[in-house]
Amino acid sequence: MTINIGFIGPGIMGRPMALNLMKGGYKLWAYARRPETLQPLTVAGATGCASASEVAKHADVIFTIVSDTPDVEAVIFGEQGIAKHARPGSVIVDMSTISPTATKAFSERLEKLGLEMLDAPVSGGETGAINATLSIMVGGKTKVFERVKPLFECMGKNIVHIGENGAGQVAKACNQIVVAVTIEAVAEALTFARKNGADPAKVRDALMGGFAGSKIMEVHGKRMLDNDFKPGFKVGLHQKDMRIVMETAHQLGLALPAAAMVTQHLNALMGTGDANLDSAAIVKVIARMSGI
Amino acid sequence: MTINIGFIGPGIMGRPMALNLMKGGYKLWAYARRPETLQPLTVAGATGCASASEVAKHADVIFTIVSDTPDVEAVIFGEQGIAKHARPGSVIVDMSTISPTATKAFSERLEKLGLEMLDAPVSGGETGAINATLSIMVGGKTKVFERVKPLFECMGKNIVHIGENGAGQVAKACNQIVVAVTIEAVAEALTFARKNGADPAKVRDALMGGFAGSKIMEVHGKRMLDNDFKPGFKVGLHQKDMRIVMETAHQLGLALPAAAMVTQHLNALMGTGDANLDSAAIVKVIARMSGI
Repeated sequence: MTINIGFIGPGIMGRPMALNLMKGGYKLWAYARRPETLQPLTVAGATGCASASEVAKHADVIFTIVSDTPDVEAVIFGEQGIAKHARPGSVIVDMSTISPTATKAFSERLEKLGLEMLDAPVSGGETGAINATLSIMVGGKTKVFERVKPLFECMGKNIVHIGENGAGQVAKACNQIVVAVTIEAVAEALTFARKNGADPAKVRDALMGGFAGSKIMEVHGKRMLDNDFKPGFKVGLHQKDMRIVMETAHQLGLALPAAAMVTQHLNALMGTGDANLDSAAIVKVIARMSGI
Repeated sequence: MTINIGFIGPGIMGRPMALNLMKGGYKLWAYARRPETLQPLTVAGATGCASASEVAKHADVIFTIVSDTPDVEAVIFGEQGIAKHARPGSVIVDMSTISPTATKAFSERLEKLGLEMLDAPVSGGETGAINATLSIMVGGKTKVFERVKPLFECMGKNIVHIGENGAGQVAKACNQIVVAVTIEAVAEALTFARKNGADPAKVRDALMGGFAGSKIMEVHGKRMLDNDFKPGFKVGLHQKDMRIVMETAHQLGLALPAAAMVTQHLNALMGTGDANLDSAAIVKVIARMSGI
């Protein structure tokens, strides 16, 4: 039996992900808000659709990867949304990074309509999307996860079923907390070295092998030393993800003091017009703050 | 020519370091505030001395590894200190973790007395000291570093000459900043996962391979999951090191917001009687704060 796949939101991340699904031999039905972004997919053999509803008419598994929580809600439950025309038993796989609590609510609404949902946010960036090496963090029922797993394997390498609906988004939020706060750690340390007149490059070398060593020290530490903030992962997107973290913490009554502070440093970068820099630019906030 | 080595402060770290120097074939003159701590060294063939001054009379290179800045000052410049009887051209190698600015001042005072100094704080803990695998971060003149290097090689593996006097202490301070703030990052993320009802162990697994991966996520993250806070590196010592960081930042007019906040979390652990836990116990502060 051919699985007909739907794909909604073929942007910078979504386009290569959809192409990798097609390389896996699946027939693809696609929709994008701006029709011109569909072209690379239709050229590769996908069928362009005029709405999310139309995608849902043809597909058994429908992937969505859009910007933010309200976009996912619109694409699923809106006037021209997936839910309206989806066939019973269809699976909606949301690969956007959005609110874990909203995700849980969406999956409950869909269940009442006889539809399944997985949340499956990714990390690994555009490079990971192109090379099909994304990390995929999945929330939802085990049997639904097992059904969609071969499709995930067309797009990623490290595919982990975290738990129930929303748990994938929780893991992604945790990822963004750790990345942001570790960038802050490296930024403060390298600025401390500079201000003390010690060579931050030598300090980084000395620290890399021990307990202070991390992927962030390696990659983002290097960006800080080279003063090269070409993304990577943009401040504007990291700020959005941290807003989701802080909203969720607010809803849960959970204090996350370091995450909250780093969110302020991302806000500061938005204020200085640095939205399109890599989030390693947090080091600029630390330096500016003390007139360095 | 035999190099006569002095060793002051054979504690938990100093004892195995001194023994490793003796294994390297060097003759050792040792002093400890409490004479009973000298015994393991004298049994191994070291000569016990009654004061730091007496060590200085016999040794060309004198290692110190004591608790804090005032202890180093007393051992070098005190009534019975090294400076009083050291022979011209002798080198004092301070392996304690103390203030970078005080270290710089000490080296200048010693230079006027015709004595050389290196700061050479270590990381790697008791295990690293026993196995001679310490990381050693060195500040001081290149020619003095080259002279002492064969001795460092008896005690450590990753030996980096960072820069001028004080630069070794700067690197160590940077190490402690990164370790503390990264522990905070992992603590907040795993607590966020728990509070959201997601399995923190699965979240850690999903995060380990990507940008959120670090030595701290691996080792301290595991301690948090297992609720096992056997040190490792004690809260009481990490708090002392962060006090040095914050004093130095104060002197320099440098804001280190995340480092400052984590220092408060270490202060909190001192208040709850957790001084002897591993500093991964920062996760307890995050949890307690929100009633988890």
